[in-house]
Amino acid sequence: MSQAQEFPSAVDSDPSKLGWMTGFPPPQDRIISALDGTFFKFPALRYSVCHMREFFPSKVVPSDPINRYSFSTAEDSAIDALSFQPLGDEKSISWAESLLKNYTDGILILHKGRIIYEKYFGALTQNGRHAAMSVSKTLTGTLAAQLIAEGVLDENKYCRDYIPELAHSAFGDATIRQVLDMTTGLEFSEDYADPKAEIWAFSRAGDPFHFQRSPDEPANYFDYLKTVKKKGQHGDAFGYKTVNTDVMGWIISRVLNKPLSQVLSEKIWQPLGTNFDAYYLIDGAGICFAGGGLTTNLRDMAMFGEMVRNKGYFNGKQILAKEVIESIRSGGSQAAFAKAGYTNLKQWSYKNMWWVSHNADGAFCARGVHGQTVYIDPKAEMVIVRFASHPLASNSANDGYSLPAYQAVADYLLKK
Amino acid sequence: MSQAQEFPSAVDSDPSKLGWMTGFPPPQDRIISALDGTFFKFPALRYSVCHMREFFPSKVVPSDPINRYSFSTAEDSAIDALSFQPLGDEKSISWAESLLKNYTDGILILHKGRIIYEKYFGALTQNGRHAAMSVSKTLTGTLAAQLIAEGVLDENKYCRDYIPELAHSAFGDATIRQVLDMTTGLEFSEDYADPKAEIWAFSRAGDPFHFQRSPDEPANYFDYLKTVKKKGQHGDAFGYKTVNTDVMGWIISRVLNKPLSQVLSEKIWQPLGTNFDAYYLIDGAGICFAGGGLTTNLRDMAMFGEMVRNKGYFNGKQILAKEVIESIRSGGSQAAFAKAGYTNLKQWSYKNMWWVSHNADGAFCARGVHGQTVYIDPKAEMVIVRFASHPLASNSANDGYSLPAYQAVADYLLKK
Repeated sequence: MSQAQEFPSAVDSDPSKLGWMTGFPPPQDRIISALDGTFFKFPALRYSVCHMREFFPSKVVPSDPINRYSFSTAEDSAIDALSFQPLGDEKSISWAESLLKNYTDGILILHKGRIIYEKYFGALTQNGRHAAMSVSKTLTGTLAAQLIAEGVLDENKYCRDYIPELAHSAFGDATIRQVLDMTTGLEFSEDYADPKAEIWAFSRAGDPFHFQRSPDEPANYFDYLKTVKKKGQHGDAFGYKTVNTDVMGWIISRVLNKPLSQVLSEKIWQPLGTNFDAYYLIDGAGICFAGGGLTTNLRDMAMFGEMVRNKGYFNGKQILAKEVIESIRSGGSQAAFAKAGYTNLKQWSYKNMWWVSHNADGAFCARGVHGQTVYIDPKAEMVIVRFASHPLASNSANDGYSLPAYQAVADYLLKK
Repeated sequence: MSQAQEFPSAVDSDPSKLGWMTGFPPPQDRIISALDGTFFKFPALRYSVCHMREFFPSKVVPSDPINRYSFSTAEDSAIDALSFQPLGDEKSISWAESLLKNYTDGILILHKGRIIYEKYFGALTQNGRHAAMSVSKTLTGTLAAQLIAEGVLDENKYCRDYIPELAHSAFGDATIRQVLDMTTGLEFSEDYADPKAEIWAFSRAGDPFHFQRSPDEPANYFDYLKTVKKKGQHGDAFGYKTVNTDVMGWIISRVLNKPLSQVLSEKIWQPLGTNFDAYYLIDGAGICFAGGGLTTNLRDMAMFGEMVRNKGYFNGKQILAKEVIESIRSGGSQAAFAKAGYTNLKQWSYKNMWWVSHNADGAFCARGVHGQTVYIDPKAEMVIVRFASHPLASNSANDGYSLPAYQAVADYLLKK
């Protein structure tokens, strides 16, 4: 957490104060762009996370224009003062303080399905939208798990059984289950600090305008995925690699013959009664970035979280099969997960692209870089959705002020 | 109209038949892109007009998530068989046939506010969206006229009074009224066939990624507008030039200190009760393309048309001042208009970025290339909205099968 202290504070980095893309025209030093990468440098990223479609082509995830769910509200003013001890810090801080520490853009707490807390900061508003980052993965994984429950996918089959073009890649002999739980053995580094890391080649392939791509490199996500090489064994160890999700997105689209945006809309977004269209960033072939390209409204994402907490039931209907949620909650292999060495996530596991805590409350969550989360605590009947723009990508930078804060709210609600 | 016959027919050019951007991944020869301009070559443009955000950055025009208007329907099955004589053609054809002749993507007829006819073709669906092209101009002009009615703008003031940066351009000594009625004298050619026409430099400035732009050229719409030179006198002759609308968009944003997308949302889109967000394409400074960048749903656009027909009243409220609509309906200078030499539009005029027919019914309309229109016939209490993807940009290519068709429906409704 100390690294974050080199950066301007949440208050000082507020986009409305800094005026990114504001003015007619904006001053030259307030124009940020995808072309030169300025759009995603902190603190400009605090603006960009709420305006991704203004920098890139995007594909709509339609909400239902008529069926619209509305949460009931029962504000609990005691939450701001709840105190907790951050991980790796001796001094307790309050819930309200933690929101600034974590560069929160929007946060919403549901208790038994009612909104008990909701705050917006930075560039986000109640009717706005925010990049979900790798929370996108969880939507993809949940859809795939639903297709398994429906018998459309077989978790023991190999990726090559659905996508023959993957036969000669690392994914060829990986099972659907291994991809969904990210226990594939891949020669693929996501170390953004290393310019030779494969994540950069993957990003270049997915850039719809090929700004940095050499002519001999793959021109879209799918063409890239075919080139991923195997390293080690599948099924052995958890390795958090975005390409697993994009393979899953490919398989979903191939078996249903629909873009992922449409599958998400039909199976989840419209049944939920979301109030706002979501969208995916797309590559030059119009393919949705399944591993990180989703942008949604905060309340809409809370509907997704609440539906999962209710074992698939929401807005008067069973949206996902009960067994999908049970399978997520039971978690994946803790032994496989331990090999990845997450110091803040001891005894956790990863299942269907959800992070499972195996704690006393049975909490599990979706997580995305810079602090995005959908955190579900079944015992406390609580769902927390947070969108954020922390200066550091890795959630290890904000977990210290997040995970114990969520537990403090859960403990409070259990005693209430 | 004969030129259109070189192109594949509406049926043969149906995007669902040709499979643009379809498949996971799409075949190489079905991938179209903004990068190389393939997205807008006929017949690919029939796909692209319904998917503009998938090729470019865009800025949302939010609909109201709760307030949603719903049309009542009274289908009139007699309309398809209505017969009329196309301009410049001796053989009568039916309304139904005319829709294919004009590469119609979606068409809706309102009579006394009820939907009596609605059809979708090509890549458009009832819940889809379609590029409005220069119908965008009409929204901009209507907003400006409303600001005049509110006293925020003075139609006799000069552009330089609102935008000092325009002082040394052609717009400096042009009045708001001259810009709104496009009687400015500008050295600006919109002849797309001429690679040296100024419209290309304007387009390069507006391209958010500067694909074709030289480093010494303007980097956004506003910077370009400052460079437009005067030619002839202002107020003399009608000259249909997109840059007038973008100057108007600039003035609107400057005086209200809001992006045009937000102004349109607050003043028109949300009060109407539209069911779908609209969006603008934007330049590299995030500026909305006021002259042609709007994409909307067809029914939503019909709400706009019906509101204008009802002198600003719709969905239970006065959305625009009555005098705004009266000013549009009274039209502009027919003498100034005649100098532009539109053979299909004899005795028409142009006012507040609307095309006014001065015919017996007092019809007036919004028009956009490739066949977009909002056509209002006050006498027949009729509004027709059409989205289309005619292979030829100029409306002179489709007017022959459109204007008399609309009149035939109006005549039928008047006798009904």
